[in-house]
Amino acid sequence: MTVADRPRDGSPDALPIAVPSVDSPPDEQPVAWRHRHLLDVDVLSWDDIELVMRTTDAMREVLARPIAKVPALRGRNVTILFYEASTRTRVSFEVAAKNLSADVVNIAAATSSVAKGESLVDTVKTVEALGAQMLVMRHSVSGAPYLAAEIFSGSVLNGGDGWHAQPTQALLDLYTLRSRLANDDGAVGPGRPLEGRKVVILGDILHSRVARSNIWTLTAAGADLWLCGPSTLLRGFEAWALRSSAAGRPFHVTASVDDALRDADVVMALRIQKERMASGLLPSLREYAARYGLTRERLALARPDALVMHPGPMNEGVEIAPDVAAGTRSLIEEQVRNGVAVRMALLYLLAGVRG
Amino acid sequence: MTVADRPRDGSPDALPIAVPSVDSPPDEQPVAWRHRHLLDVDVLSWDDIELVMRTTDAMREVLARPIAKVPALRGRNVTILFYEASTRTRVSFEVAAKNLSADVVNIAAATSSVAKGESLVDTVKTVEALGAQMLVMRHSVSGAPYLAAEIFSGSVLNGGDGWHAQPTQALLDLYTLRSRLANDDGAVGPGRPLEGRKVVILGDILHSRVARSNIWTLTAAGADLWLCGPSTLLRGFEAWALRSSAAGRPFHVTASVDDALRDADVVMALRIQKERMASGLLPSLREYAARYGLTRERLALARPDALVMHPGPMNEGVEIAPDVAAGTRSLIEEQVRNGVAVRMALLYLLAGVRG
Amino acid sequence: MTVADRPRDGSPDALPIAVPSVDSPPDEQPVAWRHRHLLDVDVLSWDDIELVMRTTDAMREVLARPIAKVPALRGRNVTILFYEASTRTRVSFEVAAKNLSADVVNIAAATSSVAKGESLVDTVKTVEALGAQMLVMRHSVSGAPYLAAEIFSGSVLNGGDGWHAQPTQALLDLYTLRSRLANDDGAVGPGRPLEGRKVVILGDILHSRVARSNIWTLTAAGADLWLCGPSTLLRGFEAWALRSSAAGRPFHVTASVDDALRDADVVMALRIQKERMASGLLPSLREYAARYGLTRERLALARPDALVMHPGPMNEGVEIAPDVAAGTRSLIEEQVRNGVAVRMALLYLLAGVRG
Repeated sequence: MTVADRPRDGSPDALPIAVPSVDSPPDEQPVAWRHRHLLDVDVLSWDDIELVMRTTDAMREVLARPIAKVPALRGRNVTILFYEASTRTRVSFEVAAKNLSADVVNIAAATSSVAKGESLVDTVKTVEALGAQMLVMRHSVSGAPYLAAEIFSGSVLNGGDGWHAQPTQALLDLYTLRSRLANDDGAVGPGRPLEGRKVVILGDILHSRVARSNIWTLTAAGADLWLCGPSTLLRGFEAWALRSSAAGRPFHVTASVDDALRDADVVMALRIQKERMASGLLPSLREYAARYGLTRERLALARPDALVMHPGPMNEGVEIAPDVAAGTRSLIEEQVRNGVAVRMALLYLLAGVRG
Repeated sequence: MTVADRPRDGSPDALPIAVPSVDSPPDEQPVAWRHRHLLDVDVLSWDDIELVMRTTDAMREVLARPIAKVPALRGRNVTILFYEASTRTRVSFEVAAKNLSADVVNIAAATSSVAKGESLVDTVKTVEALGAQMLVMRHSVSGAPYLAAEIFSGSVLNGGDGWHAQPTQALLDLYTLRSRLANDDGAVGPGRPLEGRKVVILGDILHSRVARSNIWTLTAAGADLWLCGPSTLLRGFEAWALRSSAAGRPFHVTASVDDALRDADVVMALRIQKERMASGLLPSLREYAARYGLTRERLALARPDALVMHPGPMNEGVEIAPDVAAGTRSLIEEQVRNGVAVRMALLYLLAGVRG
Repeated sequence: MTVADRPRDGSPDALPIAVPSVDSPPDEQPVAWRHRHLLDVDVLSWDDIELVMRTTDAMREVLARPIAKVPALRGRNVTILFYEASTRTRVSFEVAAKNLSADVVNIAAATSSVAKGESLVDTVKTVEALGAQMLVMRHSVSGAPYLAAEIFSGSVLNGGDGWHAQPTQALLDLYTLRSRLANDDGAVGPGRPLEGRKVVILGDILHSRVARSNIWTLTAAGADLWLCGPSTLLRGFEAWALRSSAAGRPFHVTASVDDALRDADVVMALRIQKERMASGLLPSLREYAARYGLTRERLALARPDALVMHPGPMNEGVEIAPDVAAGTRSLIEEQVRNGVAVRMALLYLLAGVRG
């Protein structure tokens, strides 16, 4: 694999990216991917992101086949080690790996030796000795996958760590928005359909790994990004916005729903973790819904064709109204669908990295 | 697929049913199956039931091979979503799907996002977006699979819903009885070995989805069906019997074990849910066992060659005595064995439905 | 399969053992393996053990391939029925079976019908009727797999039963030691690298199925075996040592760590089950660690090149110090790695037994 003839970041419109032929094994591809792990999106260049997007296009084409399965990862062991309950992310990775013909091992840590007090380091070493070649991991402690990556000799994919990062969610959100906006009127250019679009992330920003990873990718894509929620749940983000702005990637932070939603192109509502209530950081669910819930009335502030997103699972009637979630501009199911394709792309790209 | 040249219901002896060649994909078969879902048996015509029986014969032949596997559903995603604990039904569907080379995803709802409050509608939409093409579902609420079927664009198979229906259990019970009785003396005709046979369902009829589905198939097969249990657990069934009789499908309801078992050909004991005790509907387990338990002494009232069935899992010593369950006339293991073949047949037939 | 031309036990150096060609189905192999089940190691002859070791060599070669997968057990159903929580053993069997292309069904008994009161006998019969051809079983009751083997018509592999036996652990420990010692200086002969080596098992011997199975294989291999732990946790082992010595398989029992570790070639620390504390048999964890924990200081009593083992999962800082567990002479990860290969070998050999 060579990175020699890759263009510099920032000129995405004419990338000579070699998109892999996904019916073949990944290590036979002349692909410009150099990251052994996927821990967060903040180390990805724009070219990297473009390659993920285009490989995802190829995977969507696979998913549209009568038999949505390629032999690319045949015989590879993908172990899914989840320390937090999850359906959609766990199943999404599982289906993605099986579509690539990998062997999948599921370990739910709550019922595993972990309950016997084994350390994360020992667990990761053990999982590798048991044959894992790619490790998909979710953990309640921020940074846990970084520790795993130091030990594990294969590839680690972060399926969510604490409040820190959810890189595959950010990439699937980006892919979903690009696919939709590229087909709508008003896109600025062929490579950057998000350029200048007003995108709002609404809800409990403070505790959201989804928000953190999306800040990176959405500012990289040139979106006009707004973070909105109760001020107690925005602590620290104003300072981040200042630093990010200084680095050429500005975004806005506001507790005013009206300011955020006005003329928005996209509104992404975040899940409210009910267990946060106890912390005193959030008002009651009822009050939260009244003040920040994404209702049809509130959405009327946005552009008439504004798109609606949610990373799921939803508390309908709290952070999002059922009619909004099920509305014609909702991308929520499309997010789930693209999640499988994005994860196929990432497993494929990571599997092609040598040494 | 055409249904044009199918005979009318009621003339099963000479059906020109094209039994599928199960080594090939189901959508290449000229099979007269038209149901996209399997929610209950009450929408199945006699021809439909015959086709399930004959396809099950073909699956039993597959199961007898050294490698009991056909590529028929290769690359299809069968998702098993169970909201109630289960071993035998869950594993039976899993093995059936794997024998057809499908990819299987297991979701135990107790440990899934469902615990995070996601609605059934959202879960079903999500599962579909994750790639599910066939959805096997068990739920404690009667009717839940019907709701799922309205949303899901693939096929829904009901693995048991509340007190309502257990269609695959009724079909495997029917298959098991037919197979056995067709080989015994005294069958009325080649197509209807159950015609006129006295079949008793014994136990907690009120709370039994197995009983409800079996009433349909056993009366359709022409059996002389008797429901028997404590009168508190038969409420509403006399009225049902009257309606059913008016529709040409009579059955008997009685609290007298002696009346029910006398000269019976088949006795199917139902599982007693111990949690029903609290409701006051049932006497103590000891008293239930004494008055309604299927003991050897009680079974002596039936015909000497009477067959014994139980849907499992058994409370041995309560609704059935261990020596009866393990006796030579017990079909209990055969029921489990046929369960895999019937579920293979149903997955296969449903997968062949277009549009 | 013939056992006619096998040499007598005790002459391992020149065994004409036909090692299977593991790329082919096991029942086409002319292999001298006659045990339908693997319940414990105490029925294995030395020739049997040699065959397991050599077949494991062949499986290690498979594991070193780019695609670590052979079609040997394609279409076979391996059911893993665990009544106790486990990660490493369960996953090790699962990966081993998948590497041989078997179909794997996982049943965690805590969440299964077992919780509904079904008897072990019924569960085993049911699992067989559901298609299981090989049954891997872990149970908290000693002897449970023997009961299962009486009922099950396929092969039962004991994945650990109560305090009684952990045969695959003993075989992987033996394989790991042989592989390492055969490459070191001082091995007595090509076939018996453990002959005369001082091997110490340190910890809660009384409650350890790992210790019990290892006593058999390590004395069979001619090791100078020492069992060491608090005297309350050695009860009954002096009498066993006397009987074993009379049968030509001596081993030592001592509560003195110094006597045990002095000049040891191998030290295997056992996991302390924290739940034993309540029983009064063990001092506090802190006191146990101080008196019996395998620290670097204590290990200095052993030979400079002494090897360190642990069956996992470890309580680091209790029965073993983290620096010892992670040290250069630690075989702990190698044990896990070899566990997959040994279990592949055993599944393969058992699958080749006819009738």
